[in-house]
Amino acid sequence: MTSNSAGRDLSKTSMDELGRMSPEAFQAAPKHAIVLVLDNIRSLNNVGSAFRTADAFLIEAIYLCGVTGTPPHKDIEKTALGATSSVSWKYFNTTMEAVQDLRHNGYLLAAIEQTKGSTPLQQYGAPARPVAFIFGNEVYGVEQEVINLSDVCLEIPQYGTKHSLNVAVSIGIVLWEMLRQRQA
Amino acid sequence: MTSNSAGRDLSKTSMDELGRMSPEAFQAAPKHAIVLVLDNIRSLNNVGSAFRTADAFLIEAIYLCGVTGTPPHKDIEKTALGATSSVSWKYFNTTMEAVQDLRHNGYLLAAIEQTKGSTPLQQYGAPARPVAFIFGNEVYGVEQEVINLSDVCLEIPQYGTKHSLNVAVSIGIVLWEMLRQRQA
Repeated sequence: MTSNSAGRDLSKTSMDELGRMSPEAFQAAPKHAIVLVLDNIRSLNNVGSAFRTADAFLIEAIYLCGVTGTPPHKDIEKTALGATSSVSWKYFNTTMEAVQDLRHNGYLLAAIEQTKGSTPLQQYGAPARPVAFIFGNEVYGVEQEVINLSDVCLEIPQYGTKHSLNVAVSIGIVLWEMLRQRQA
Repeated sequence: MTSNSAGRDLSKTSMDELGRMSPEAFQAAPKHAIVLVLDNIRSLNNVGSAFRTADAFLIEAIYLCGVTGTPPHKDIEKTALGATSSVSWKYFNTTMEAVQDLRHNGYLLAAIEQTKGSTPLQQYGAPARPVAFIFGNEVYGVEQEVINLSDVCLEIPQYGTKHSLNVAVSIGIVLWEMLRQRQA
């Protein structure tokens, strides 16, 4: 046993000890009624990271829209590391089609975007009903017509010199905050 | 004005309207007494993202250790997008040197690692005193001797098929959670 001065066992947990699910068990497991919508995400690295984060947090599905790349693709796998085999996904030619489909199926639409009327993420109570979180293109953000159709815009407050966080990082923060609230 | 059915102004906030700081103003601004320690991070993409996240959240400094790449480098800039000009950083040959320096200067040492004695992130109260968050290599995690020297190990609870989240995503989640708690 490796321990620190407080006597806690600080040896790393092995993959076996972590008891991770197989992709088949993941597909059959109950999931959070949350869909990630990727609105014309250019970077395959960001797409792969979205899969890996969705896997870790038991997210229902990822909707890949417009120019967003789709599996199988080696540059998605570099960051997904196999999570494209566990997490469900669908492709839509346009993001408007994806969000109209989601609205039709009763999902609340939450665009992640810095707008004048955005709600700071920490002030937004995680909805109990199914919700879709929409993340936009690395340069242009979420399409304005998609924002206009959304029920709410959420913003991660930022204080530095740059316009915005990396989209893969934003996905991690939004999902963490929503699940943390649901479980609190 | 672009608005949704609730009449909120949902036009995107321009860079001017966001009122972001210059790199010079950032360097002079008060910051959170938080240091990110990157322990032998292989991917320059992850290093660049760490800079961008540290910029957004007004973090004091990043310590780059061992094989972790340092600016200037074009592959760091691809994700840092200039945040290497605002965020302070130092290079250390070994992560042990970095954490010994931090301990000597009164920082609490928190390793982000899945160990048997880890504290779930949401249960960890953000410390008021200066703290260093240590993030490990993409494959091997935080070095065991660095873990052993740490005051606490923090773990982001994960439920899917994969071993762990991407390190850049983990950095975003940990910083978000600590600052959210400090500001709550």
